[in-house]
Amino acid sequence: MKKADLIITDISYILTMDENFTEYKDSDIVIKDGKIIDIGKNKKDEYFGKTISGKNKIAIPGLINTHTHAAMTLLRGYGSDNPLKVWLEEYIWPAEGKLVSYEFVKDGTDIACYEMLRNGVTTFVDMYFFEDAVAQSVKEVGMRAVLCTGILDFPTPGAKNADEGIAKTEDFIKHFEKDENIFPAVGPHAPYTCSPDTLKKAFNLAEKYDVLYHIHVSETQFEVNDIKERYGNTPVKHLEKVGVLNERVLAAHMVHPTEEEIDILAEKNVKVAHCPESNLKLASGVAPIPKMIEKGVTVAIGTDGTASNDDLDIIGEISTAAKLHKGYTLNPTVLNAKEALKMATLDGAKAIRKEDKIGSLEIGKFADIVLMDINDPHLQPVFDPYTQIVYSSNGKDVDTVIINGDIKVLNKKVLVLNKKELLEKAQKWKKKVLED
Amino acid sequence: MKKADLIITDISYILTMDENFTEYKDSDIVIKDGKIIDIGKNKKDEYFGKTISGKNKIAIPGLINTHTHAAMTLLRGYGSDNPLKVWLEEYIWPAEGKLVSYEFVKDGTDIACYEMLRNGVTTFVDMYFFEDAVAQSVKEVGMRAVLCTGILDFPTPGAKNADEGIAKTEDFIKHFEKDENIFPAVGPHAPYTCSPDTLKKAFNLAEKYDVLYHIHVSETQFEVNDIKERYGNTPVKHLEKVGVLNERVLAAHMVHPTEEEIDILAEKNVKVAHCPESNLKLASGVAPIPKMIEKGVTVAIGTDGTASNDDLDIIGEISTAAKLHKGYTLNPTVLNAKEALKMATLDGAKAIRKEDKIGSLEIGKFADIVLMDINDPHLQPVFDPYTQIVYSSNGKDVDTVIINGDIKVLNKKVLVLNKKELLEKAQKWKKKVLED
Repeated sequence: MKKADLIITDISYILTMDENFTEYKDSDIVIKDGKIIDIGKNKKDEYFGKTISGKNKIAIPGLINTHTHAAMTLLRGYGSDNPLKVWLEEYIWPAEGKLVSYEFVKDGTDIACYEMLRNGVTTFVDMYFFEDAVAQSVKEVGMRAVLCTGILDFPTPGAKNADEGIAKTEDFIKHFEKDENIFPAVGPHAPYTCSPDTLKKAFNLAEKYDVLYHIHVSETQFEVNDIKERYGNTPVKHLEKVGVLNERVLAAHMVHPTEEEIDILAEKNVKVAHCPESNLKLASGVAPIPKMIEKGVTVAIGTDGTASNDDLDIIGEISTAAKLHKGYTLNPTVLNAKEALKMATLDGAKAIRKEDKIGSLEIGKFADIVLMDINDPHLQPVFDPYTQIVYSSNGKDVDTVIINGDIKVLNKKVLVLNKKELLEKAQKWKKKVLED
Repeated sequence: MKKADLIITDISYILTMDENFTEYKDSDIVIKDGKIIDIGKNKKDEYFGKTISGKNKIAIPGLINTHTHAAMTLLRGYGSDNPLKVWLEEYIWPAEGKLVSYEFVKDGTDIACYEMLRNGVTTFVDMYFFEDAVAQSVKEVGMRAVLCTGILDFPTPGAKNADEGIAKTEDFIKHFEKDENIFPAVGPHAPYTCSPDTLKKAFNLAEKYDVLYHIHVSETQFEVNDIKERYGNTPVKHLEKVGVLNERVLAAHMVHPTEEEIDILAEKNVKVAHCPESNLKLASGVAPIPKMIEKGVTVAIGTDGTASNDDLDIIGEISTAAKLHKGYTLNPTVLNAKEALKMATLDGAKAIRKEDKIGSLEIGKFADIVLMDINDPHLQPVFDPYTQIVYSSNGKDVDTVIINGDIKVLNKKVLVLNKKELLEKAQKWKKKVLED
C-alpha cells in the first residue's frame, strides 16, 4: 500500500477532458502533494489515506472562468435593463468612480470567490483595478487566478494614465512572478481605450516577463465602427498591424470578427474568451464561435463581470453557449456537450497557457477537481454524463470542489469563506453605492 | 385577532406581479382556505395561525410552465446533440414506441413534478399521452395542471387515430370538468400532424366544453415550408383559414410567424407559449417575442419537454429569454426583468385563462406562492429584486413553494415526493430504454 493524501473513491463517471476525452466509470482518483498521482478502477486498494466518496457523482476538472471583473459583484443588478449608455454613465461609472478602492475590490472579490467556488470554478482570469486586493482574496481562499490591472489611456481608479498603469503592472508581475497560483498578466483594456503606443508597450511588457496579454476585442459594433474610423481597420486587423497578436493574447468577447479576422486569430494562435450571456444581456450580439472553432481558434468561456451577466456560474455559461449557437446557426450539432465542457476545462487552460498544469484530470496535473452531484431526480437517468452536465445541471449541482488537493467545497457548502461576513459586506457596500 | 391558516411574515420583498407591479417591502401574506386573504405591513398582528418567516426572501406568484411533456424526464439527454432527424427517428420515437404506457407516464411525471416543485413551478401545461397518469401525479402532489392528450392523424401510444384521440379527450374532459386543479384541454398536436378536419373537430370540442386548445405552431422552418406546400399558407394563416384561432388557443413555440401572422395572433387573442431553450437546442430558431409583445400578443413561457431543453427550470427559462432577445434584437432594453417574470406568472395565467384565480399575489386569488432565498452572497446586495431573480437566480434558489395554501417545498426540500423512490424509477426506465 502506498501513501496518498486524498482518495476519491467509486466516482460514477470521471470525465478527464484530456485530448481524447478519456472516461472512467466507477473509478478512483488518487491525490498526493496537490497533484493527481493515479486514476482508474480499484486504485483505492493500492493506496491508504483520507478518502471521500465519489458515488453518484461525476468528476470533471476544476472549471476555468477566462474573463471576469470579480469585484463587480458589489454592483450586481445595479441599473440593469437600461440602455448601455445610461447603464454605464449613470450607474456603473459613477459608482466605480466613487467607490473603487482596495477595500471595495477585496470585499467584492471575496463574494465572487465564494460564488465561483460554489459553482465549481477553481481558476479565473480577472481584469479590474487594485489587483493586489484580488490576489489577497485568491490567496486566502486558495484558488488560482490570472490577474491584470486594466490599462487605459485615461485616469482610472488604479492609475492616472497608461504609463503608470504599465509601470504598476510591472511591479505586480515582479511581485508574483514566481507564485504557484497567482499568474500576473498585462491587461490593456481594449483597442478603443488604448492607443497603438499603449497597446505595444503593454505587449512588450508581456513578452519581457512571458505572461498573458489579456484584452477586450471586438465586443460591440460601436467598437468596430470606432476603430475603423480612427485607424481604417477592424479591431483584429488593427491589433495585427500594431503588432500585438500572438499566442500569449487572450481576447475577451470577439463578437464581431470578420472571416479574415478569424483566419488571423487562428494563424496567430490568439485565444478567445467567449462571454455569451454578457454579450446577450448588453445586446452586443452573438459571437461566431462555431466558425472560430472550425478554423482552429481556441475558444474558452468567461462570465464577464456580474454587473453584466449577472452570475458567475460557468456551467450555466456553457449551457447557454451550447444552446445559443445551435439556435443561431440553425444546426443542432454544433458545439455539442463535450465541446462545451471543453471550453470550460482544457481549452480554458490553453487560453491561459497552463494546459501542462490544469484543465484535465491527468496524472501529474494539479488536483483541481469538481464533483457534480447526480443523485437528484433532475439528473437521472444519465444517458450521457456530458449532456447531463451541460444541459441539465447548473452550478448549484456542484457538490465538491478540490483545488491543489485541498477540499474547498463539500456537500455544497463553501468551507473557506464565512457566508455571514460576506452578506454583511454586501449590505455595507449597497449603502455606499446608494448614498449621495 | 382573526384566524388564518398560514401567515408568511416579514417577507423582504413581495412582488405581486399584478397589472401594476405592486410591491411590498418587509410585509406579510395571510392565507386562509387556500386563498390569499390579506397582504401588507404588520398584517401578522391582525391574525393568528401557523407562521413561517419570509425574512431574506422574495415572494413571487407560483410559476407557470405553459408548455411541457412532463413524462419525457425519462428520456432526458437521450440522443442529444444529434441532427434532429436522427434524434427523433433513432432515439426518441423508438423509445416512446416501445415504452410509453400508463406506468411510464406516471413515473416520468412524478420525476417532473419533483423537479418543477423544486424550481417553483406550481401550475403546468402538459401535452403527451396517458394524461390520466399525469392527472394522477398532479393530484398526488397537489399541483395544478392543464392536461391534454396529443391528437395526431396517425397512431400514437394513446389512440389509433385522430377520431379516437378526440373521443378519448372528450371522456377525459368530462371526467375532470369540475376539478379545481386539473384543467382538461384539447391537444391537436400541430398543423403538420393534424388535417384541417382534425383541427376543426378538436376546436369544436374545445368550444363545446369551454376548455383550452393547445397546439404546437410554427416551431420549425420545416413546418412552415410543409404547410405552405400542402395548403398554400403559412401555419398561422392556415389555422385562421381552418377557423381554429381564438382566445382559447395556446400556441407553443411560434418561432417563425410573419408580421401579418403576428397581427392575426394579436387580433384573435391567441396566446403564445415561448420555449426559448428548446428552440435553441433543437436549432429551431429564435421567436420574435419582443415584436409579439409590442403588438399585444400575450406571451407566456414554457420549458418544453426535458428531452429537448433539458430541464424544467422556469427561472432559467425566463433568464434565457430576457438575455436572448436583447442579444438577438441588439437592444438591451427589450424584455426587461419585470416583463420576463410576468411571462412566468400573470401572463402564464392569462395564457391558460385562469388569471382570475392565479398568476399574481392578490387578495382572493389562490395562495400559490414561491419564496426565493436571497440570503446568499450570489444574490446580495439587492438593488432590484426583479433583476436578481431573472438574471442572478435559478430554480435552485427557490426556498419555499406553497400551493393552495399548502407547503410543498420548504428549506429547498420537496416535501411531497420521495426522492429515493424517484431515483429508483429513473434507473428502472433507463434499463428499459437501453435494452433491445
